[in-house]
Amino acid sequence: MKPNLKKLAALTLAAPLVGCATEERQNVVLFLIDDMGWADSSLSFGEHIYPRNQIFETPNIERLAQRGVIMSSAYVSSTSSPTRNSIMTGMNSARSRHTNYGAKFIDTPTDGGDKLEVLEGDVLLPTDWNYNGIDPTGTISHAAHCTPLPQLLKDNGYYTIHIGKGHWAPLGTPAASPLNMGFCVNVAGQVVGRANSYYGQDNYGNREDLWSWHATHNMCEYYGTDTHLSDALTLEAIKSLDYPIANNIPFFLNFCHHAVHTPIQGDSRFVDKYLAKGLDRQQAAYASLVEGIDKSLGELLDYLEAKGVMDKTMIIFMSDNGGDSIHPEKGGVKHTHNAPLREGKGSVYEGGIRVPMVVAWADRTEGGRKIATPVVAEDIFTTLLDVAGVESYSTVQTVDGQSFVDLVSGKSSMDYNRPILTHFPHQWRPEVNDDIDYMTALRCGDWKIVYRHRTLALELYNLAQDLSERCNLAQSHPQKLAQMAALMTAELKAKGALMPKLRATGQPIPYPDQLIKQE
Amino acid sequence: MKPNLKKLAALTLAAPLVGCATEERQNVVLFLIDDMGWADSSLSFGEHIYPRNQIFETPNIERLAQRGVIMSSAYVSSTSSPTRNSIMTGMNSARSRHTNYGAKFIDTPTDGGDKLEVLEGDVLLPTDWNYNGIDPTGTISHAAHCTPLPQLLKDNGYYTIHIGKGHWAPLGTPAASPLNMGFCVNVAGQVVGRANSYYGQDNYGNREDLWSWHATHNMCEYYGTDTHLSDALTLEAIKSLDYPIANNIPFFLNFCHHAVHTPIQGDSRFVDKYLAKGLDRQQAAYASLVEGIDKSLGELLDYLEAKGVMDKTMIIFMSDNGGDSIHPEKGGVKHTHNAPLREGKGSVYEGGIRVPMVVAWADRTEGGRKIATPVVAEDIFTTLLDVAGVESYSTVQTVDGQSFVDLVSGKSSMDYNRPILTHFPHQWRPEVNDDIDYMTALRCGDWKIVYRHRTLALELYNLAQDLSERCNLAQSHPQKLAQMAALMTAELKAKGALMPKLRATGQPIPYPDQLIKQE
Repeated sequence: MKPNLKKLAALTLAAPLVGCATEERQNVVLFLIDDMGWADSSLSFGEHIYPRNQIFETPNIERLAQRGVIMSSAYVSSTSSPTRNSIMTGMNSARSRHTNYGAKFIDTPTDGGDKLEVLEGDVLLPTDWNYNGIDPTGTISHAAHCTPLPQLLKDNGYYTIHIGKGHWAPLGTPAASPLNMGFCVNVAGQVVGRANSYYGQDNYGNREDLWSWHATHNMCEYYGTDTHLSDALTLEAIKSLDYPIANNIPFFLNFCHHAVHTPIQGDSRFVDKYLAKGLDRQQAAYASLVEGIDKSLGELLDYLEAKGVMDKTMIIFMSDNGGDSIHPEKGGVKHTHNAPLREGKGSVYEGGIRVPMVVAWADRTEGGRKIATPVVAEDIFTTLLDVAGVESYSTVQTVDGQSFVDLVSGKSSMDYNRPILTHFPHQWRPEVNDDIDYMTALRCGDWKIVYRHRTLALELYNLAQDLSERCNLAQSHPQKLAQMAALMTAELKAKGALMPKLRATGQPIPYPDQLIKQE
Repeated sequence: MKPNLKKLAALTLAAPLVGCATEERQNVVLFLIDDMGWADSSLSFGEHIYPRNQIFETPNIERLAQRGVIMSSAYVSSTSSPTRNSIMTGMNSARSRHTNYGAKFIDTPTDGGDKLEVLEGDVLLPTDWNYNGIDPTGTISHAAHCTPLPQLLKDNGYYTIHIGKGHWAPLGTPAASPLNMGFCVNVAGQVVGRANSYYGQDNYGNREDLWSWHATHNMCEYYGTDTHLSDALTLEAIKSLDYPIANNIPFFLNFCHHAVHTPIQGDSRFVDKYLAKGLDRQQAAYASLVEGIDKSLGELLDYLEAKGVMDKTMIIFMSDNGGDSIHPEKGGVKHTHNAPLREGKGSVYEGGIRVPMVVAWADRTEGGRKIATPVVAEDIFTTLLDVAGVESYSTVQTVDGQSFVDLVSGKSSMDYNRPILTHFPHQWRPEVNDDIDYMTALRCGDWKIVYRHRTLALELYNLAQDLSERCNLAQSHPQKLAQMAALMTAELKAKGALMPKLRATGQPIPYPDQLIKQE
């Protein structure tokens, strides 16, 4: 009788998860950009080539898309840490109640409207949200208790690497450190939401005359050199992959660039070509940051190809929220930076929450295929566990995400009409921004309802016909509006979303279905 | 015929180094203290209980010694980075030519005498030494090109973890980062030689009003808490061990405390008991730092025991140089802090170079056995590779270290008369210190010769009879002196040691054998 080799191997060896029988275990790479807009690439994520697509030069995003599928309706939260925490927990941010970006310091809500001075139009009180982000220990108040994604992967034999921006929770709490989130390796990950400086010449902010909380850790080998932070992080990511690849250990690389967030400091390798194209200094600087992360992607792909692991690696390229369209540093005209999409970072209009995304997974993804089915940040949690073959796991949190493995690999479709909720019960900036503050959106199929908390107004858009959300159909389609309001209400309640309160009464604002006039 | 299970397993599996067949691979832990003196422990490393041993309370060093052997003649360089670099490279510092501590900044010799102002007695010019430390790439001038220990271990399937102080090379060079030295994981390791602050309340120096180059990275989860840095690093070390232990991967933990280096900031958990013993504030603060690292050792031992890996782990506890006996922060009377040993940090007298050391290796070391055979920092390199079973390796550098595996496990003796060279062609501090600056020492058996470069004087001591080096036998034992001078000369030449120059002539000082009057 021929001996069963695999069975014998299993009997002989103590640690089957690592080294042994891992030939088929898939690696996962999340390549997450900060504040990159949907149209800020030479690859279009929509149906047309838009003017912005003609500005940027991102050959490596195109290269990835030649292997992978282009997700044209990839959604995230409208600011940074809510998206990052949805990825780490699988929770929609309405459920985690971490709905706005987190501060560096504990117990410090970032609500722009949460100031003593009440500005004109500032009629709401913010919610008592989880401003302390997430917490794997369950000991921190105003933080969502969770079992983080990297912990589950690590517990299942994965080598888990965090590179770059963390921003899951404030200083002095467990999730300030990637090592408490289940990462084996951390380079530069901590609490801050942006870099102090992208420049090696500035020591990335680690200098007496420049120091701030945003100074990047773990970079001292590059101090005083002309190594851009995007490049330095790439080198660190590649270094960190050597061990698992050499030892055939499956890995999760959570590669989180600080670029292309403010400060918009030009990348000298690329900025001149954008100036030559006629862009102003700020816009050219931004485009050069974009090309820097594209180069980073290319170098990572080169490395993975050279190591021969592309055939067992899923790579997800995406941004954490829409392009910033408010900060003067970006140049250009405010609120226009994500055309054809309306608005930008902070807003639940498409410009704030629809982001570039490519998923490439060896020969399982059909290169260049465009997928319009909506996916959302919390799906990354479920998808990566699915790719890793982690079938049975328990979490302290309720997971909202769904795996898009079958969708991207063409095995089956996913519900095009799945409701996608984006809840932002906050004033983002110190000043009032009507199209950004205090709004909730829900997409279902081609339809989208927008709830403006301040004015208790509902808007209705058909994204298939009106990607730019300029034609409010609320009045002309009352039945669809009522249906969408009911759906949004159900989603808000199901996820336990917190609603802001009216300053005048102290009462929560109504759910959207209460705003529909009964026939 | 019964199938050969191991052979089948080997045929079936791709990566035998990890996970498979690792049951017998030994883990190695280097627990390295900064500036801890030979007598700064309740465990005596000598033949008697000395007065200082009665001050300190270090139950966990005693506990380790109950499992392990006590190395009573463990030698290192007289300052920090030379010792650390000998460990990383296996080179004696006379060979690496990194003979004094390294600066934060590149191309910045730390010679106290290398100043424009020539002080009285400052008759020498420093050597053109490798002030840029070590360099795994061979691209940095004034740095010793090397194949580092962790790289060799990692290349052989070891999971390599660096925690705490690095201090191998300056900012802007490869060895500034542990990841370039072959470590998979780095927590807090960088270029600096000391911490800015041990206090979580100070954010370990990461605060606008406190920031300096010595601010500790990767600690932001503890900011604002009362977690002492020694405790925080212990927690990080234990976290980092989870992955290799869970997956049965052999590991090298390079755990390098910042304690008990300056700043001598009291550890509130322990300081009161030392005040109650009558110590002054500074001495009590120092003793509390010592007890902090003892507690750290205990917690690491508890963890390794709980995980059941003590039976396959070698643990080396040691200090990087003798106790600081110069800085007023230490309290007490200068130059007395290592009694019964003469002098302290910086000096080639025993107080500067003989350090506490315990080696515990499961049942292979006979608990409590005291070994007087000299061992030296560069032996750690060779020993750890030996313990790891890495039999065949190549290095760009010439390795001076010898494995003490057989010595500590009682299998065989090691040459008691091996010459131990300590070469310090430098002025350590800005001020002239006669018993510290510009000296070379060589021990051979019980004899020790000391060469004072400034005065071109030779001293001879018999350590068996005169541990405190108070009785200079140079005049009374001319033959032994000549023999030792010849040996020192041979060692200096064999290792390519750089000799300082006389300011008056610009010529190198003579080798010691040239100072012996011919009969």
